[in-house]
Amino acid sequence: MTRLAFDAWAGEQLARVEAQLDALVLADAPAGLGDAMRYGVLDGGKRLRPLLVLAAAQAVQGECAIALRAACAVELIHAYSLIHDDMPCMDNDVLRRGKPTVHVQYGEARAMLAGDAMQALAFEVLTPSDTPADDLPSLALQARLCSLLARASGVFGMAGGQAIDLASVGHQLDEQSLQDMHRRKTGALLQASVLMGAACGRTTPAAWAALADYGAAIGLAFQVVDDILDVTQASDVLGKTAGKDADQNKPTYVSLLGLEGARARAVELHGRARVALEASGVPDQRWLAMLADRVVDRES
Amino acid sequence: MTRLAFDAWAGEQLARVEAQLDALVLADAPAGLGDAMRYGVLDGGKRLRPLLVLAAAQAVQGECAIALRAACAVELIHAYSLIHDDMPCMDNDVLRRGKPTVHVQYGEARAMLAGDAMQALAFEVLTPSDTPADDLPSLALQARLCSLLARASGVFGMAGGQAIDLASVGHQLDEQSLQDMHRRKTGALLQASVLMGAACGRTTPAAWAALADYGAAIGLAFQVVDDILDVTQASDVLGKTAGKDADQNKPTYVSLLGLEGARARAVELHGRARVALEASGVPDQRWLAMLADRVVDRES
Repeated sequence: MTRLAFDAWAGEQLARVEAQLDALVLADAPAGLGDAMRYGVLDGGKRLRPLLVLAAAQAVQGECAIALRAACAVELIHAYSLIHDDMPCMDNDVLRRGKPTVHVQYGEARAMLAGDAMQALAFEVLTPSDTPADDLPSLALQARLCSLLARASGVFGMAGGQAIDLASVGHQLDEQSLQDMHRRKTGALLQASVLMGAACGRTTPAAWAALADYGAAIGLAFQVVDDILDVTQASDVLGKTAGKDADQNKPTYVSLLGLEGARARAVELHGRARVALEASGVPDQRWLAMLADRVVDRES
Repeated sequence: MTRLAFDAWAGEQLARVEAQLDALVLADAPAGLGDAMRYGVLDGGKRLRPLLVLAAAQAVQGECAIALRAACAVELIHAYSLIHDDMPCMDNDVLRRGKPTVHVQYGEARAMLAGDAMQALAFEVLTPSDTPADDLPSLALQARLCSLLARASGVFGMAGGQAIDLASVGHQLDEQSLQDMHRRKTGALLQASVLMGAACGRTTPAAWAALADYGAAIGLAFQVVDDILDVTQASDVLGKTAGKDADQNKPTYVSLLGLEGARARAVELHGRARVALEASGVPDQRWLAMLADRVVDRES
């Protein structure tokens, strides 16, 4: 698998995701809410989560249309969380994906509502209203996708991780506590992306467990690399304010393990992800393998 | 049907809802998030939405366990919306259900996250993780409930109505625009409560449409009565700050129709709800009929 082939595949998938999001997040929503939502989710970000969904769906030869919806739903959850995280009562950030954050552009009230509406939209997207009432297999898959996404987003997933993050500012965490925080805050949704894609096809319980391991490993690797980039890259490369974690005295893998230690941990997690993927035995591992590489090799 | 019989039925249902919410919203969520969520949803409110779900489920002789979950899910959505609405960037209210609002008690960041996590929890509650993968009818019902709840909560439902409300402060709306706002802001979730209950049993398309009419009528009636109570009742009776709408120069049914006009409108909507309910022909209409009365007769 060459980088070039991956880039071609990823480019094609991202165009599909972008077109679908453009169709799903309507500008005609009331009182400027649609504009704020579109601003928050379109034309931005690496789209790692949608790529994981689509790569996992392809790995298990899953059904395409619902996988594309799942990819958009996960991205809507991710985008809403960024909008809320950036607000003054949370991280108070003014720059995101190289643009003013949503509350800077649209005001705090509309930013909060846009985030709220995007979370609801994620579940609307997973449950298309034109599914025939007697198409039980499709409806059952929709319920499973809702279950995975809700659990990854909620109190024992992303929102819970955010709460720990908030409470940990100014405290030194040990690696176990830091890992617990990140497993929820970013890991849960990255892992759910893989599993939602896998749910769109057939898997054995053993393959499912191995893909869950793969998702957990790249979920943590992603955060370790984020912490590394926060100290090694400039804001204009990241598209967000660099060095904020250190400024806010937040615990990170770099503050805990040092830069070299953090790099070693990222390499180790990458290895774990690749081993788990191979162990899953799913038919088409190409894109998930490349995505594991990309999570670790990325520069922003 | 006597008031006494209704009170006995409602008391029993509310005890079930309270016990279920108590079990679903765990205190051991990380970093105080569970405490904030429990504070926001337990021991408070009229629980009109859960009662509508359970009354509708009983009306169509629906399945009890999932109806109880649906009742809790709707209340979680309602409670999260109150938490976010009360925040300083929105209505900036400090009193709710006779207690300090969640952000006053737990800080803004935790209040926002608690609301976010409660929205996710609503969809977790609708998709219990112990449903066997081959129980397609149960999973299909879960997907349908998620679809109804998500659409009632999102941009063309509650969140959209909130955005219109926010944008309308200081503007005079005509009755059509006011109705459109309330249909989304409170009506959509009240109507969804009825339909989610109805989805737990069997209905004909005609009965479904009639129940949707019933839900739309009581949804609007509820808001008209809310506007009346805001000018006729004291804060200690309402458990929230009275007279706020007038203070904030918000358009209301009272400002538009006058107090007597608003009362007449509530009576008319009540009549529409009762007619639609009868037209539905569902087997057991008792509790839905009494709930329509209660929506209009309430004093807080």
